[in-house]
Amino acid sequence: MPKAGRSQEEIRRHNLGALLRHVHLGGPASRTTLAGRMGLNRSTIMGLTAELTSAGLVREELPGDTGKAGRPSLVVRPESERVYALAFDVRVDRLVAAKVGLGGTILDRREAVRPRAGADLHDVVGVLAGFARRMQREAGAGSVCAGVAAAYCGMIRPGDGMVRFGPNMGWVDQAFGTELGLRLGLGLPVAVGNEAHLGALAEHQRGAGVGFQNLIYLHGDVGVGGGIIVGGKLLDGDGGYGCELGHMMVNPYNGRPCGCGSRGCLEAEVGEQALIDAAGRSSELTGRDGVRAVVDAAARGDTAARDALRRIGDWLGIGVANLINLFNPGLVIFGGMLREVYQGAAPQVHSRVAANVLVISRERVQLRTSALGDDATLIGAAELAFSNLLTDPLGVLASSALAPHDAMTG
Amino acid sequence: MPKAGRSQEEIRRHNLGALLRHVHLGGPASRTTLAGRMGLNRSTIMGLTAELTSAGLVREELPGDTGKAGRPSLVVRPESERVYALAFDVRVDRLVAAKVGLGGTILDRREAVRPRAGADLHDVVGVLAGFARRMQREAGAGSVCAGVAAAYCGMIRPGDGMVRFGPNMGWVDQAFGTELGLRLGLGLPVAVGNEAHLGALAEHQRGAGVGFQNLIYLHGDVGVGGGIIVGGKLLDGDGGYGCELGHMMVNPYNGRPCGCGSRGCLEAEVGEQALIDAAGRSSELTGRDGVRAVVDAAARGDTAARDALRRIGDWLGIGVANLINLFNPGLVIFGGMLREVYQGAAPQVHSRVAANVLVISRERVQLRTSALGDDATLIGAAELAFSNLLTDPLGVLASSALAPHDAMTG
Repeated sequence: MPKAGRSQEEIRRHNLGALLRHVHLGGPASRTTLAGRMGLNRSTIMGLTAELTSAGLVREELPGDTGKAGRPSLVVRPESERVYALAFDVRVDRLVAAKVGLGGTILDRREAVRPRAGADLHDVVGVLAGFARRMQREAGAGSVCAGVAAAYCGMIRPGDGMVRFGPNMGWVDQAFGTELGLRLGLGLPVAVGNEAHLGALAEHQRGAGVGFQNLIYLHGDVGVGGGIIVGGKLLDGDGGYGCELGHMMVNPYNGRPCGCGSRGCLEAEVGEQALIDAAGRSSELTGRDGVRAVVDAAARGDTAARDALRRIGDWLGIGVANLINLFNPGLVIFGGMLREVYQGAAPQVHSRVAANVLVISRERVQLRTSALGDDATLIGAAELAFSNLLTDPLGVLASSALAPHDAMTG
Repeated sequence: MPKAGRSQEEIRRHNLGALLRHVHLGGPASRTTLAGRMGLNRSTIMGLTAELTSAGLVREELPGDTGKAGRPSLVVRPESERVYALAFDVRVDRLVAAKVGLGGTILDRREAVRPRAGADLHDVVGVLAGFARRMQREAGAGSVCAGVAAAYCGMIRPGDGMVRFGPNMGWVDQAFGTELGLRLGLGLPVAVGNEAHLGALAEHQRGAGVGFQNLIYLHGDVGVGGGIIVGGKLLDGDGGYGCELGHMMVNPYNGRPCGCGSRGCLEAEVGEQALIDAAGRSSELTGRDGVRAVVDAAARGDTAARDALRRIGDWLGIGVANLINLFNPGLVIFGGMLREVYQGAAPQVHSRVAANVLVISRERVQLRTSALGDDATLIGAAELAFSNLLTDPLGVLASSALAPHDAMTG
């Protein structure tokens, strides 16, 4: 049951967060524009901006040449160089770390190829913490880290970032979030999210899904995951483990074996290996490069590659059709290696959607590829890292952990 | 973006609605109990109760024998006899109408068997309006109708209650809500919802799903529909057409033809006719009675009936497993004829859930049959009818449509 009302203090905190979120996601904007978007008067906006400015979170400055005569209106800009988040992305084939400024710009980025076998928790955490140390060493004096988060290719317990199940790396119940937090030594908790959940959030906030209230993001890699936005929010389910669309069984007869122990899951039928196997090229190709090679060969007219793409596209279409019937979304986004698959197999996907989705459920749905590409999951991690700051900007800044970073890394 | 804050008037309206909702759903309660549940102090509760009492929505009275010495605390009770909703349920095989008192008691109920073929919009609306007229004639003087709503076995446009697609009755784009409103002549709009959506709401508010934030309700009849609660809210999707789990394709090879034009949909594989056909009894049995006959025969050891139930239970299990992977719900509820199917085929469903759902996604999920039985959809319609009153009790009562009913039916 919602609370009876909110105190002035709660309203002010809410408004500070809302204003900061507007310039973080929407970019620099004049006070007038912000007043209109937020439904507040200009003097309230002025007061909020002054508080955020003195906290070092935004600044006001003249815009570039507006092409208009007369005195231009000041614009409110996020302090992108000073305030940043650390974002990590643990993929099956690589480890990525980035320093992302408030406003969403990637200020610094490092990555390492991860060997397919044998990277245990401590190796992974060591590599990521090393990247972070080097990026922080090069950060300007007075800059502050507002939050830390990581995307991981597995099922994550939201409270503490425990990897409950990461089949592609062989991780079960590994305390990834806690270990990374200790190793970073910043005194900040590390939020961890499933990579496809975070990819969906990123596309919803900054990518192909801006403005949609209901969307489905399919993320393909070795496995296939999903992030589903329902009424503007990520579907997390009771334990945070929702959206496992890769384990929707689409092929109940003679389905391919899946990493989960079942057979015929969408992941087993449309993941990287399924396409490479279907093209008869498993002796020469693997991974994302293998997917690209098959899609390229199909585009050049190679018959085996085209047949393989058609077959995979048909299974993908069955899965997508099921999801559209269930969620009545405005948009379906193909991310990760499914971008390439969809580009090569769109006719099969469209044909299944036309045949299997109720006419009314597909009246308005659009199908698109990811706008953020391979960075979707990393950018989603950065948004997760910024989320506390955007909820309570001054409260987070006031916490001791947000002293300028050079006091912490020395 | 949420508004900056709420006025005192908005807070008061919210609290009046919240208090009324508490006694409507939770039954009579003392002021002390309400104060605790709502997080408000007792003097605020006293003021709210006084306003609702003078509007004739609740009354305060002594509880029955409490078994304790001393002066008992007064309890706040909904005015169940005076304030009611009209609820309708258009099923494939019957038309149901009820007068439901505030608090959820069915005060009066009428039903008619609907012939399988040939009931067009005007026939259906005529039968329902006739029921309503007779029920209102027998209502006490001074009683008021707080809202009207109907459940329909098809896809409904939320704004105006248009039946976009009702394949089992052959309806396409029929202005059901508008026509029923005109025919009732109460000056009240008629809200219409999909039967399975409303069944889910009813189970969530008053049935097997009380206390769950994430649940899946499967409703079987001639077709199979669903209502899915995500984070406490019905998943409606972009146009209100979400939750069409009956059209999830589970059998891509040689699937049975479905009313939607596709093949192998869950509805085609587990609906009434699928079970009766699988038992080889389509020449003698039809509909719900047919389903019961097969389930009863299986319970008595009839081999063909047992094999049929096993086969249907396996498809049902595949569908349920897919849904658990997608939604990570706390609860799955089997309603309509799927209650009987689940009771007869629980081992097959459990076996598929064990084999096809990720271990972590099924750690806490429970499977149950509907607590409200065949009334779930009707009770859901009543809740939909009460929803405006529970949002703004005094505003709805003040509207002219809520003059005592005898002024309207005379």
